[in-house]
This record gives sequence, structure tokens and C-alpha cells, in this order.
Amino acid sequence: MNSSLLTTGVQSKTNLQKIFMDKYSLYVPNEGTFPKGYKVASIATGVKPDDKLDLGIILNTNKSYKSSAAAVFTTNKFKAAPVLVSKKVLEDNSGKDINAIVINSGCANSVTGEVGMKDANEMINQINSKIDQENSTLVMSTGVIGQRLDLDKISKGIDESFEGPHFDDSYESWLNLAKSICTTDTFPKLVTETFTLNSSGKEFTLTGIAKGAGMICPNMATLLGFILTDLPIESNALGKMLKFATDRSFNCISVDGDMSTNDTITMLANGAVEVEEIDENSKDFLQVQKQITRFAQKLAQLVVRDGEGSTKFVTVKVENSLVYEDAKVIAESISNSMLVKTALYGQDANWGRILCAIGYAKLDNLKSLDVDKINVSFITTDNSEPRELKLVSNGVPQLNIDEERASEILALNDLEILVDLGTGKENAKFWTCDLSHEYVTINGDYRS
Amino acid sequence: MNSSLLTTGVQSKTNLQKIFMDKYSLYVPNEGTFPKGYKVASIATGVKPDDKLDLGIILNTNKSYKSSAAAVFTTNKFKAAPVLVSKKVLEDNSGKDINAIVINSGCANSVTGEVGMKDANEMINQINSKIDQENSTLVMSTGVIGQRLDLDKISKGIDESFEGPHFDDSYESWLNLAKSICTTDTFPKLVTETFTLNSSGKEFTLTGIAKGAGMICPNMATLLGFILTDLPIESNALGKMLKFATDRSFNCISVDGDMSTNDTITMLANGAVEVEEIDENSKDFLQVQKQITRFAQKLAQLVVRDGEGSTKFVTVKVENSLVYEDAKVIAESISNSMLVKTALYGQDANWGRILCAIGYAKLDNLKSLDVDKINVSFITTDNSEPRELKLVSNGVPQLNIDEERASEILALNDLEILVDLGTGKENAKFWTCDLSHEYVTINGDYRS
Repeated sequence: MNSSLLTTGVQSKTNLQKIFMDKYSLYVPNEGTFPKGYKVASIATGVKPDDKLDLGIILNTNKSYKSSAAAVFTTNKFKAAPVLVSKKVLEDNSGKDINAIVINSGCANSVTGEVGMKDANEMINQINSKIDQENSTLVMSTGVIGQRLDLDKISKGIDESFEGPHFDDSYESWLNLAKSICTTDTFPKLVTETFTLNSSGKEFTLTGIAKGAGMICPNMATLLGFILTDLPIESNALGKMLKFATDRSFNCISVDGDMSTNDTITMLANGAVEVEEIDENSKDFLQVQKQITRFAQKLAQLVVRDGEGSTKFVTVKVENSLVYEDAKVIAESISNSMLVKTALYGQDANWGRILCAIGYAKLDNLKSLDVDKINVSFITTDNSEPRELKLVSNGVPQLNIDEERASEILALNDLEILVDLGTGKENAKFWTCDLSHEYVTINGDYRS
Repeated sequence: MNSSLLTTGVQSKTNLQKIFMDKYSLYVPNEGTFPKGYKVASIATGVKPDDKLDLGIILNTNKSYKSSAAAVFTTNKFKAAPVLVSKKVLEDNSGKDINAIVINSGCANSVTGEVGMKDANEMINQINSKIDQENSTLVMSTGVIGQRLDLDKISKGIDESFEGPHFDDSYESWLNLAKSICTTDTFPKLVTETFTLNSSGKEFTLTGIAKGAGMICPNMATLLGFILTDLPIESNALGKMLKFATDRSFNCISVDGDMSTNDTITMLANGAVEVEEIDENSKDFLQVQKQITRFAQKLAQLVVRDGEGSTKFVTVKVENSLVYEDAKVIAESISNSMLVKTALYGQDANWGRILCAIGYAKLDNLKSLDVDKINVSFITTDNSEPRELKLVSNGVPQLNIDEERASEILALNDLEILVDLGTGKENAKFWTCDLSHEYVTINGDYRS
């Protein structure tokens, strides 16, 4: 028992606010270019208290191309109504001609049975009639589960959004949209970037918004994310790109290992940039898939950066595995281990806990892990040298680890754990955060 | 953010010591009857500081029967040297004629390569030569991993144990043995019970000792347990009984979901009670298997009771599943969820997090879970009424949950979560504890 840690581990409210302020200024852009042809609006409907923004709507206004859509949904067996309803819209339309997304926060519309389905359908029907197009809207919800939506407030909010000059494509409107879907998030998650197609030299833009604030599970449900682009991408190709990107981004982050009933990542491609439609055989396919993947990683990393109570952002790299899936499952096992997370919080170079988490990962191919070939290191993310601190070399713990250097690396807000399996050539990455007293405080007292 | 919880959540050192004292008096017996024919010794070798007991030895002295042995070992791919060495002894001897177990604490002899194997072998060879019998000793180790055993100290300790009048069958000797294998445990875990065979009316005794202190993983490696009986049980039958019992006890507890490199549960049956040897066809087989299972559950529950930093002991019952394995995997998913654990710590009747953990359990048979049939309740363990507080009924959250009653139940140190799947007839139980600020403090600062 170390009573000084007991004291220092718990930060005063003032200190915490300072950390939150820093995260906002570090991770929220203060300007941006956005994809052509979209307009967004957000409004405070009163579902959330204190006039907070709690409803966002995205509209595609480009009609020269039938906008494609794709989504990746939670695999939790309890799927919230908006997940089931959006899934059906995509299936009915084969992912084509989707022109709106509506998102509400404050209530997840999850475990709400038949009325929940009815409410979710009413939300999309209301938008469909506003844009005068059937079956063209997706819906996402986040917030408390088991409570019925206050549809009166939401419906009034949707009406108001379409009445005044709410829809816009300014930086402020996009930022407000990002704010409107936040729950326990301490900063809105907005990323936007412009790229050039190698084939034609034409520019296109990706804008992504996410929420997650850490726990990736109810009572505050949910990881939500959406990525919008102005490229024309055939809907099957878009589905493949999004699945590929999600597997390497939103499915590679860990805050507490829980998975919610509402998790949804959606992508729209409205074709406002005039190039040939990109399909799976197109020469642009791989370039765009790669860029969407890197972009999704940036967005997903913001969710970890905002991990509830976290003080550290840790990249876990597992390299040279015989099988990719095994590299990923090992990275996941390290990232989810409560003992690794608490050691990181305690700034303890505890390679034993890392090996332990590697050892109980359930491998596809046992040959991916050879206990005599494994190397484990910490890697700095600043410019100091030496960048690598070896902890385990060919399965043997390093004698005389430079504890001073270890302390320097572990004191950083960002660091890397590198595991080299030495059994093949496949690599995987995960992003995780530490487990702090603050996490326990936040989650021990969420509802009240 | 709730700054009052921030303050109250962290207990002062004085309060914590009070909790530990209570656990000792509640869970450590102050007398006991022990199985015939065993003698035990424990000693302070100096591996641990402050003259703490750190080496224990169990000897079978009954020579009228060839003592049977069985063990269940960790499935972690990094297996400590004592695990590999004991496994080989059991294989070489087909689980027969094992007459000694030696256990050291303070050093887990894990991730120690060839020298670790040599050291573990030297420990058993030394005991074998003391009892003048080859290949007759099992070894278990617990403590820091990656450090070499101080074999000089341990060897001197073994010599000393056999020199004076150390070996004994008194209550004090058994209790000291339980103490000698502790690491971060706050109380020694010793259970002993006498039973009557239905067939012959003869009495037999089970004595169990375990350690685990919570985290069930290094840097402090390990869950260790052993059960000794004076029945004669054929070694294959003993292996089946122990596997059956372990699957329903030590494999059904969760403190933090990590699994160590050293986990080992061992059982000896020395036949000092003169009845016909029990094999798989014996009429006593099922009775004894059942009693060993219940006994192992009591012992395993003590590990959860001593869960690091825990304030609550929670039984998770999943009933009426189509498939037993699915009931178990759902119970495990609830028990390991950090969000359920923090909600329990915060005394929050958060059924949403329970449903969420059920929903992401990886089922064998999807039909075990029908979201419209599920019932979730809290159950009191005291005598107050009503005993059951329904949270979810046939998939629908209860409106107007009696929050006052919920608070009463959640304020208890012991409580049950009952999940009725309503899809079949199979039941499973898990035992878990909450996740507190103290857990983070203990594990954020273990090595230093």
C-alpha cells in the first residue's frame, strides 16, 4: 500500500479541468475544408438539459450522382432500434441514394422494444418527407439506454432545423454537429483532410466525426462515427473500403473492452467531385481505401485520447507474426488487460504483465507465438534517444533495464509498446489508454 | 464529474486496514480437522523480507496406498518452469505415487528459461532424496516473474524443514502452510471439511489451501490451490473429478480477467481412509465429485473475497440456457466487464451494462440468447424481503424500479445478479468482485 500514490492518483477537479482544456486545444481543429455538396445543422431540442446541442442532421445536396452509403454496425446481440432501422434502410436501398443522416444524443433508444422501432422509423420518415424522398435517411442515437425517446421534442427540433437558415457548410456548423453528438466526451471529435487522386490529380475531401468518450458501452451507449466524402464510390466498393478501414481503426481501439448496443460507423460518398465512379476494379480503389483507413485511424485515435479518466495514449504494435489475425488478437489482449493498463497509469515498466497478456491471447495459429523468439520494447514518441528500450529479447527478460530511461518514457503522455513475434511478416496495431482512479470515479457514478 | 465521490471513493489507510482485519476474522477458521496421513511444514527461507514464511512442504506419510495425484495447469502460453516440471512428473508417473508438494512464494520462477527449469528440478530432487523416492514431488511457485530463484536460500530452507520437528498435522501447521504461499493476499485461504460416504458411512476429509489475492496474474504471478484428501481415488478418476470441479470453481472466478503463467490447482488422494478405491465406475464417484466441486467453490470464492481492493462479492447466476457453455460464457462476460464492476462499486443498479455484457458474449449456439425472453434481477443475500428486484422482464426494462430497494441491495457486501435466459435448462455460476479506486492504486504501484 502506498498512501502517497493514493493521494497523488486522485486529481483535484481544477487539475482535471485543465487536462480537458488541453485536450480541446490539442485535438479540435480551428478551421477546415469540408467535402462539397453537404450541409449540416444541429439544434438543442431539450432532450439534454441546459440547452445543449443534442440533434444533428447531415444532408447531401448534390443531385448529379446517386449518393452511396455503407455502415458497420455493432455485433452486440442487443441491437438498438436505430441500428436495426438503419440496417434495413441500407439493405432496402442496396446502399444507394442515401441523402441524410440524423443523429440524436441524450437517449440511445436501446432496449426499447416495439415503440423504439416505431420512434426510430418516425425520425427517418420525418426527414424523408422534408427532403421529399423515401427511404433515404439513416438514424443514429446515443445516450442513456432503456429510456423511450422524447419524440415530441425531437420532432419539433427537426421541424425547426428545416425552418430557419440552419443548414450550412461552414466550419462552425460542422463543429457544432460534432458537439451535438457528444455524451461524456470532453471534446468534439472532428477531422477533415483533402487528398489528391493519383490517377487524375483531382482533389477530394474526407470529413469525419465521432463520439465515444471512452467507455464504448452503455449506460452511456456508444461509439458513433461517420465519414463523408465528395468522391463518387460505387456502394459495394464503399462497403469494402469501410469494412477494411474499420477493422484497422475503430475495431483496434480499447478503452475498457466493452462493446455497446449502438456502435455504428457510417460513410457517405456523394460524388460531388466529378471523376469516374470508383469501383473495386478501379485504379483508384486501393489508394482511396488506404487513405480512408489512415483517416479512420486518426478519428478512432481521438476516441482513445478522450478515454474516460485516461492520462496516457499508448500505441501497441505487434509485428512479424505468422498470421495477421494473431498479431491483432495479441495487440487486443495487451490493450484490454486491466493489469497492463494500471501499470501504464502507475508508470511501471512491467514487462511481466505484457507477456502474461500475450500468453493468454487465443491464437488462430499456435505457431504465431514462439516464446523463445519474442521481443518486447517500449518506444518513445518524442525525439529523445535511445528511442527503444528493450524489455524482453528473444524470450529472455533484459537484465539491468535502465530504470531511469524507463521512467522517462513512461512519464510521456504518448508512448508505444512494440512486440516483435519473429515468426512471420504480418503486423497489427492497437491503440489503448491507461486505467486510472478517475475511470473508476466516472463509471462508478454515471447514472446519478 | 462528482467531486464528492472522488473524495469518498478513496478510503483512508486506517479504514482499509479495518476491512482487511474483518476479512481475516470472517474467513480464516480458528480450528479444523485435517485428512489423515499428511504432515506439513513451512519456513522463512529469506527469499521474502522480514522473516516471512515463504516455503511450504506437504508430505504424505501413508504408505498403505500409492497416493494419487492430479493437476490442472494454466493455459497461458508462457508456462513457468514449475508448471512444466510438475506436468512432466505427473505424466511420467501417470499420476501415481506422488508423496510431496513443495511451494515457494516471493519468486514465481517464470520466464527464467533453462536455468529456471534446472532450479525447479533441483527443488523436487532435493525433496525426493529427503523422502527417499524418485519422481514423487510436485513443485509450485508464486511471486515476481523474470527473476531467478535464490536456490541457496530455498535449499537451506528445505534442509532445515527436514532437520528439526517441523513436520506436523496440527491446525497451526496447516494455517502456517496457507500463510507461507501468500503474496498480495490479505488473509490465508484455508478450508477443511469432513464428509461421510453414502455407500459405507465412512468419514473422509478434504483440506484446501489457495492463494490469489485478486489479480490472478503477474507481476505477482498466480492463482495456486491444492486440495488434499484421505480417500483412495484412482488417478484417472481423480483427474476427472478435479477437472470437473475446477471448471465450476477456479475457472468461474473473475477479479480482473487476467490469467497468469503459474496458475495451478493440484489434488492428492492418499488412501489413508480404508475403503475400496474409488474409480469412475464406483458408486461413490458422483458423490465425491460433487463434494469436491462444492468444496473447490468455497476455496475459489475466498480468492474473490480477497480480490484486490474489492468491496463487494457478487455471485452471477445465469439460468435456463439452451447450452451450458453459453450460460458460462455469459456469466463470465458479466463478471469480467469493467463497466459492470465499476457500477457495482458505485452501487448503481445499472442493468444496461449487464445487458450490454450479455450481448457481446461469444456464444456457441445463438439460440441460447433470445433478447425477448431475458430476465435480469438483483437478489439479496440477507433475509430482507422482497429478495428479488426485477430489472428486466422478458427483454423489457422495468419501469419504476424501486430505487430505494435497489440501494439497499447494492449497499450489501454480498449480492447476486440473476440472469434467466428462458431458452433451456442449463445453469452456470460465476463469482466476481467490484472494481475500486484501491484496485488501481494497488496495481498501479506494485513493483515499487
